[in-house]
Amino acid sequence: MLRVSRLYSRNRAGRALATIKRSNSSVCGAYFPDEPSRPELNTEKIPGPSGIKLNKELGKVFDNRASNFVADYYNSIGNYIADADGNKLLDVYCQISSIPLGYNNPALIETAKLEAMINSLVNRPALACFPSIDYGKILNEGILAAAPPGMNKVWTALSGSCANETAYKAAFMYQEAKHRGSMDFTSEELASVMENKAPGASEKVILSFDKGFHGRLFGSLSTTRSKAIHKLDIPAFPWPKAPFPQLKYPLEEFANENHAEEERCLAILEDIIKEHPPHKIAAIVVEPVQSEGGDVHATRFFFQGLRDLTKKHEILMIVDEVQTGVGASGKFWAHEHWNLSEPPEMVSFSKKFQAAGFYFSDPELQPNKPFRQFNTWCGDPSKALIARSIYQEISKNNLVKKTAQVGDYLYKSLETVFSKYPDRVKNLRGKNMGTFIAWDCANPEERNKLLLSCRSKGVNIGGCGEVTVRLRPTLVFENKHADVLINILEDSLKELYK
Amino acid sequence: MLRVSRLYSRNRAGRALATIKRSNSSVCGAYFPDEPSRPELNTEKIPGPSGIKLNKELGKVFDNRASNFVADYYNSIGNYIADADGNKLLDVYCQISSIPLGYNNPALIETAKLEAMINSLVNRPALACFPSIDYGKILNEGILAAAPPGMNKVWTALSGSCANETAYKAAFMYQEAKHRGSMDFTSEELASVMENKAPGASEKVILSFDKGFHGRLFGSLSTTRSKAIHKLDIPAFPWPKAPFPQLKYPLEEFANENHAEEERCLAILEDIIKEHPPHKIAAIVVEPVQSEGGDVHATRFFFQGLRDLTKKHEILMIVDEVQTGVGASGKFWAHEHWNLSEPPEMVSFSKKFQAAGFYFSDPELQPNKPFRQFNTWCGDPSKALIARSIYQEISKNNLVKKTAQVGDYLYKSLETVFSKYPDRVKNLRGKNMGTFIAWDCANPEERNKLLLSCRSKGVNIGGCGEVTVRLRPTLVFENKHADVLINILEDSLKELYK
Repeated sequence: MLRVSRLYSRNRAGRALATIKRSNSSVCGAYFPDEPSRPELNTEKIPGPSGIKLNKELGKVFDNRASNFVADYYNSIGNYIADADGNKLLDVYCQISSIPLGYNNPALIETAKLEAMINSLVNRPALACFPSIDYGKILNEGILAAAPPGMNKVWTALSGSCANETAYKAAFMYQEAKHRGSMDFTSEELASVMENKAPGASEKVILSFDKGFHGRLFGSLSTTRSKAIHKLDIPAFPWPKAPFPQLKYPLEEFANENHAEEERCLAILEDIIKEHPPHKIAAIVVEPVQSEGGDVHATRFFFQGLRDLTKKHEILMIVDEVQTGVGASGKFWAHEHWNLSEPPEMVSFSKKFQAAGFYFSDPELQPNKPFRQFNTWCGDPSKALIARSIYQEISKNNLVKKTAQVGDYLYKSLETVFSKYPDRVKNLRGKNMGTFIAWDCANPEERNKLLLSCRSKGVNIGGCGEVTVRLRPTLVFENKHADVLINILEDSLKELYK
Repeated sequence: MLRVSRLYSRNRAGRALATIKRSNSSVCGAYFPDEPSRPELNTEKIPGPSGIKLNKELGKVFDNRASNFVADYYNSIGNYIADADGNKLLDVYCQISSIPLGYNNPALIETAKLEAMINSLVNRPALACFPSIDYGKILNEGILAAAPPGMNKVWTALSGSCANETAYKAAFMYQEAKHRGSMDFTSEELASVMENKAPGASEKVILSFDKGFHGRLFGSLSTTRSKAIHKLDIPAFPWPKAPFPQLKYPLEEFANENHAEEERCLAILEDIIKEHPPHKIAAIVVEPVQSEGGDVHATRFFFQGLRDLTKKHEILMIVDEVQTGVGASGKFWAHEHWNLSEPPEMVSFSKKFQAAGFYFSDPELQPNKPFRQFNTWCGDPSKALIARSIYQEISKNNLVKKTAQVGDYLYKSLETVFSKYPDRVKNLRGKNMGTFIAWDCANPEERNKLLLSCRSKGVNIGGCGEVTVRLRPTLVFENKHADVLINILEDSLKELYK
């Protein structure tokens, strides 16, 4: 492929980026000795002509109208994603928060070459009927070794949506079993369920929060409250929602107001619970940071209050860590920041772990009979193998702690930059939350302009909510990458608000 | 591993199996020169001690109470599945109908080693946002080359459940868009949908058939009507169902009654449609053979009538080929047996294709805006690569036609065996449907005894419905394998009914 070599980076070489030291003693340096030190841009615009052409072809057979650009994953490396035109962008979006260890991580490449991987790809098992001799070992060394405190069982699934939906199913079966006691199903239940009617079909509900996002299939979408476009025209269950705290920033300045806001939300939540008959609400599902909804944070006070309310009213608590899990928050699981009196009953995961599913500890969350929580594949060993390798690399290289540190550096740097644009950029958030950082722009147009400007300068960033920019870098994102991001962001802001 | 070598096969070597010729000129022989010629049994019972121990360990962390035995996929080969105790069983269940080309197929092993595979495993893309440079090519050469007649677009998903659910979403958005015309969403729709209420949330429905199975998540489970145990305690949408024809066998003998039964079901279906307001039913979903529900067949007359009714009432027709697709029926897609006046609007697939999703042709089945049919991964290139290889091997080796032929041989052989047990084994079905063959036992107990007896003699077979045995061998199941199956089946029947 022709490298035009009209590199954006060259223009900048003498300035701010000169402060970045290449250090091969860093974890990232050890993984990716050939990672670029800055974006490399070949085309005036991104996507360039090759990307546009490929996308047009693909669009004839596959709905790719949401495409940002066509990626060249063969030439992507570390924190840099290559596109079809040979551009290399610093990626702080990472496949919507799904790349944990950088592109083409050599440890994962080794895993992908394992006999166990090849075997699991060509002989995909129906895991609950014919589990493989090594599935227990793979789970124990990987997905379960990474389990949140207090959790020692897992149900494996294929995506965040089905991770949450299988957790919801477990919740409904658990609560109905509690209600039913030791009795077997009645003939009325057995008959009515085939008509999709009560009492065989549960009339219990899952409560979720305003602006929460939990997936796109029918059950998970009924708990998703992020945006109308995610939900329009799709039938939904009549399940309730509660308000999520809307905090003011900087947090230190609005401590009292924010505390009052969280108390207000907890009080409304308890009112909603009380308006329902006892045990009508099978479970409450909550994200540690509402991500698609606009990176909405709450403090541990709110989550502790939520845990207490769910215990008091015998409602199960499901923490949706699909986007927050696996290290980015500066803890392996974001809910570890909360210091809960008791762990949640279930924690769902996907994205950065490649494998999906939910953790739990109470054996009663396994329904009383086989074939109730069940499907053909019940997960995918090839993804469980990747998850094991991800976990082991994170542990070995102390990447959660390192992410907490680079997050602190990044947050402070952003604070400095944004202080010059108080009217245009606000609500910087994610302090002490690793690299799980976001901010708001003045309006959707300015947000989108900022995203596009950064892309044109070689940084791939994502938005969420209406006006929010969210950062979702890898766990091998280091201070040197933060510097590249900060410099380009600063240039974009200067250009937009000169 | 100690091979006890107390081989079941040795006991039988002098008898019926001696009639089986090993032919390495067969496709199976070429793929698997070392495939056993008969089951090899090491332990008195299956599962044996190693399997029991491994399963007990796995059960501490993963719900494996539906486990038949723990499989050793490293030592499985062709049509033979190995277990943890070194037993090798002829497999005609095949991971619930999910193994197309035999265990450890060398062509798939080559695919699993491709750079493209390794790349897709370690850099899993968000396909709709950052499609890979080769995704269009991989789709066109594989999943789309295999598309049913009249279909040229695909939406990729991860499982049969999400294949169907994304097809349902497409149906709801399509029908609501038709109703809405060129208008944009109203403010009432935009607001109500966030409350999970109409008019923003659709009140349209999907109609399915009694005994149909379409998946286990909340939307798909609402259309699943196979068994109570699949549905109990899970909330369901108030969607309608219609009766599916109950044919009598042998078909030739009951041609008139069966025709009347199919007319009766079509008439009731039209009554149900008319009881609903016009366009209330967004789509009807149907399996070519109701599989989990008990391998219930209908003739092309019924499906032609269904197609005509759906066209007449402007209802979309979704054919669920998750279990029937990819060659086993003697056509690549089972609905190709029907000679419809017009193709169905959507056809879903998964299982034997490893990749999942739905085909369609009408561009209006892509919603009017991006991010409506959307999720993080939108499929998985590693599975699309496997699907391409599966399609290419099937084509190259003419495996659909061969499966039709071996199916005929198998069907006739079964007819002969079963003719001796007319009271115990009945309703043999699947004539001219490749190896998609099933029969009924006298009652659930006898069915289960037959399955266990066959397993103890070295054949892994699955049940479905209440009293049915279903055959789901690979596409490299040949006459010689049919002979092994028939002999063991005959022995089991003799033992059970001596």
